[in-house]
Amino acid sequence: MRSWWGWGTVDQAVSDDECVQLAGQLPGLPDKPVPVPDLADLDLRVPRSEPPAGLAPLCSTTTADRASHAYGKAYRDVVRALVGDLANPPDVVAYPRAEHDIAAILDWAADADMAVVPYGGGSSVVGGVEYRGERPWLSLDLSAMDRVLDVDTTSRAIRVQAGTLGPTLEDQLRPHGLTLRHFPQSFEFSSVGGWLATRAGGHYATLHTHIDDFVESMRVLTPTGVSQSLRVPGSGAGPSPDRFFLGSEGILGVITEAWLRVQDRPVHKASRAVSFPSFPDGLHAVRTIVQSGLNPANCRLLDAGEAALSGASTDGSSVLVLGFESAHFRVTSQLDAAVDLARDHGGTPAEPSGDDAVGSWRSAFLRMPYLRDGMARMSAIVETFETACTWDKAIELYETVRTDVGAAVQRVTGSPAMINCRLTHVYPDGPAPYFTVIAAGTRGSELTMWDEIKAAASDALLTNGATITHHHAIGRDHRPWYQRQRPDPFAAALAGAKSVLDPAGVMNPGVLLE
Amino acid sequence: MRSWWGWGTVDQAVSDDECVQLAGQLPGLPDKPVPVPDLADLDLRVPRSEPPAGLAPLCSTTTADRASHAYGKAYRDVVRALVGDLANPPDVVAYPRAEHDIAAILDWAADADMAVVPYGGGSSVVGGVEYRGERPWLSLDLSAMDRVLDVDTTSRAIRVQAGTLGPTLEDQLRPHGLTLRHFPQSFEFSSVGGWLATRAGGHYATLHTHIDDFVESMRVLTPTGVSQSLRVPGSGAGPSPDRFFLGSEGILGVITEAWLRVQDRPVHKASRAVSFPSFPDGLHAVRTIVQSGLNPANCRLLDAGEAALSGASTDGSSVLVLGFESAHFRVTSQLDAAVDLARDHGGTPAEPSGDDAVGSWRSAFLRMPYLRDGMARMSAIVETFETACTWDKAIELYETVRTDVGAAVQRVTGSPAMINCRLTHVYPDGPAPYFTVIAAGTRGSELTMWDEIKAAASDALLTNGATITHHHAIGRDHRPWYQRQRPDPFAAALAGAKSVLDPAGVMNPGVLLE
Repeated sequence: MRSWWGWGTVDQAVSDDECVQLAGQLPGLPDKPVPVPDLADLDLRVPRSEPPAGLAPLCSTTTADRASHAYGKAYRDVVRALVGDLANPPDVVAYPRAEHDIAAILDWAADADMAVVPYGGGSSVVGGVEYRGERPWLSLDLSAMDRVLDVDTTSRAIRVQAGTLGPTLEDQLRPHGLTLRHFPQSFEFSSVGGWLATRAGGHYATLHTHIDDFVESMRVLTPTGVSQSLRVPGSGAGPSPDRFFLGSEGILGVITEAWLRVQDRPVHKASRAVSFPSFPDGLHAVRTIVQSGLNPANCRLLDAGEAALSGASTDGSSVLVLGFESAHFRVTSQLDAAVDLARDHGGTPAEPSGDDAVGSWRSAFLRMPYLRDGMARMSAIVETFETACTWDKAIELYETVRTDVGAAVQRVTGSPAMINCRLTHVYPDGPAPYFTVIAAGTRGSELTMWDEIKAAASDALLTNGATITHHHAIGRDHRPWYQRQRPDPFAAALAGAKSVLDPAGVMNPGVLLE
Repeated sequence: MRSWWGWGTVDQAVSDDECVQLAGQLPGLPDKPVPVPDLADLDLRVPRSEPPAGLAPLCSTTTADRASHAYGKAYRDVVRALVGDLANPPDVVAYPRAEHDIAAILDWAADADMAVVPYGGGSSVVGGVEYRGERPWLSLDLSAMDRVLDVDTTSRAIRVQAGTLGPTLEDQLRPHGLTLRHFPQSFEFSSVGGWLATRAGGHYATLHTHIDDFVESMRVLTPTGVSQSLRVPGSGAGPSPDRFFLGSEGILGVITEAWLRVQDRPVHKASRAVSFPSFPDGLHAVRTIVQSGLNPANCRLLDAGEAALSGASTDGSSVLVLGFESAHFRVTSQLDAAVDLARDHGGTPAEPSGDDAVGSWRSAFLRMPYLRDGMARMSAIVETFETACTWDKAIELYETVRTDVGAAVQRVTGSPAMINCRLTHVYPDGPAPYFTVIAAGTRGSELTMWDEIKAAASDALLTNGATITHHHAIGRDHRPWYQRQRPDPFAAALAGAKSVLDPAGVMNPGVLLE
């Protein structure tokens, strides 16, 4: 059973005792966790919309459905849910079973002046699945559209419905020996449509990072008609329709299907950890490796704090986790070449590790959001933010962000922060740094504290020429910085396109555009 | 000196004697070439627009400038120019030196209801740089904006002006040990801005095929303001502004600058030819190689006709040219692995060849358009078209196109055609086939003959689920098929965006949109 207030499933949530234990490492926290509110105690606003008879069987107005669709799963969402702050829940949650259901729902929404917010797995961490306006609103849950409809083993591509969650997708591909191999941290609780709408980042550290690169074609139901792009491996026929809908976060229509490139399941794997005396040393090594054309599947550089937190090192060194994989060839020579480059930059390779180390890291990685929820219940501030910049700016960005965010935490909470960083993806022209902030908050003020810290973090990113997001998307939380980052003429063009495709303005209002 | 009517430079054009010699291989052609019209004999329409005094120094109305900017360099352009058919030349050719010049020209165009057609190197083969409407029009030649403005050796990226032609670009990168390594066939006579506006295809056969993949950020001067995207290695901040302008073919504004990813110059190279008894055998081998993750830099499969024409084989076999390269590592083991896969699919490797074979192929490749012009002067029909499709459709597409186009040539010219095919780019999910048609035309009817053959070819592509273009772009010639291919809602969105950015509708009217 999915948690209505926090990450993932109820049975995986940390217990009250574990919450206290977790918080023991951070001084100044309360000694008891915030209790999880009982669904039965929630007093949600009476729904302001009633579905037409034909759609009623697809719609729900239960407290459980409305509460669980009120927010995504950012720290600020969890904090709000925990105190029962559900002032603006969806009036209706709809579960369409087919495209014509969605079309009927969009027609109803236009007639009723009701906002429609597409909902895949609900794992948004940027306010992408809540609505903050005055209109009645409907959460459009695609989870009933979760099938792989075609498998083309010759071209290694699949046609899949947008509501398919990560594990359901991989389960349907496994019998064919295929995998999409797109593993965002939210993998278990995010959907194909959500990945496409937000330009999700998967677990390839190089080459194929964003879901964008796996798209052959997309099918998008806009309020004014279906956009079906041609399924081809490459095309130069005008601006790419797919790239226009990728990252559109539901403001232009509902992604219903896509043809995606899949792969043979990798069988050859080799990985190794390399430690560096400093993060800048590691950065130079990673830059050399990624500019060499070796294209490791894994190339994660952890700074000293991140390495310590994950148990990868305890002596203050930074740690690079290098991994290569292939369905067809042994990859040890590539790993050796990459390790040699790391050595040239002052790296010390650890003993060769087996797949187990990678597997246990992955389990810990998927477990992390549950621990975050436990810490949130103890009034700790625990959140992440991520970005990308060119190599020439990387070291200064790293240092400025830590300084500025550290100062903001001190100012806001009166206590120091733990600010860690790892590189999740790397490109020949720059890295994608991922920061974690951990600090003691004050019970009742967690939300305002975090919002102020997050603003300082976002300002630091933009001031240093980095993007407000590499793969978490814009949603509502990043919009003020997105407005500074995006070119104005592009924003005007996007608004012009939206007014054509969604003349009633029902699609996810408040995301991306004002 | 550039040829005003045909490809490239005047000194490289084939002589009258060579024309006759070239045509000797094709029965039924006239025995003398069409003479090249003298510029002095052209009687161009009197210019209908006069530049304001401030812009006059940037503008030309000479016959040479207007005639050379009337068309691109497609077969149908050459044929029209050769008979002096220049009914609708530009009224003015402008040579802006800076962005503010372009802004002033766009303002003038809006005031004067004058169409503006951006012109980079003028190598369009799809009617991208001519105008077919009734308004006065200006050809906006960017050739004076041809400098590399910044070189970031740390991030391996450059900032370059849009008017920079291929050789000028590489000349400016060579002292830094860098290369863009984007070599379309038009390399010598096409510009950075043209590549971006048309999503040009370079000479990487796998991975980095389109110029799109080299773009860090773009600067576009639209009639309503400058769009400057953030320079980052990757971003998930909404739909990509760059991908929206890539392929926009001048209808939204003028690309003035871009940050592009460059590379260390490759020093390790290894290539080998492999012959196959049939084209389908070769296709299976290529599919296996590209799906293996080996990512060769060169992976060109020539069918029997193409192999014979280029001298790669004379026994009716298809030939695969495989090449690997790296700036950092030896690549022989990768080549060996690819050759092994080719052998598994019935391929017979030739003796290992040195770099010379590749070099001589490249020279012949760059020479080809000059020979095309010579054949055109002999009233031969010589033209190419290209596409991409998924692997499951590739063999049927190859056969259908040859059948349908062969029938069209026979019907139109009364003679058989030579129809050859090679794969220029390959992806894990499908190839990009490139077809050459050679047939005897009838003097005076070349244009109508080719247009009818081209229509049959384009119909065959779309009927078989292939794109109307992989890297030649849409222009005006492909528009009827593009209109069938593109999703209607996307076309509406693009038109909506254009009406916002270019309210006076001056930017390259007739391209992409009606």
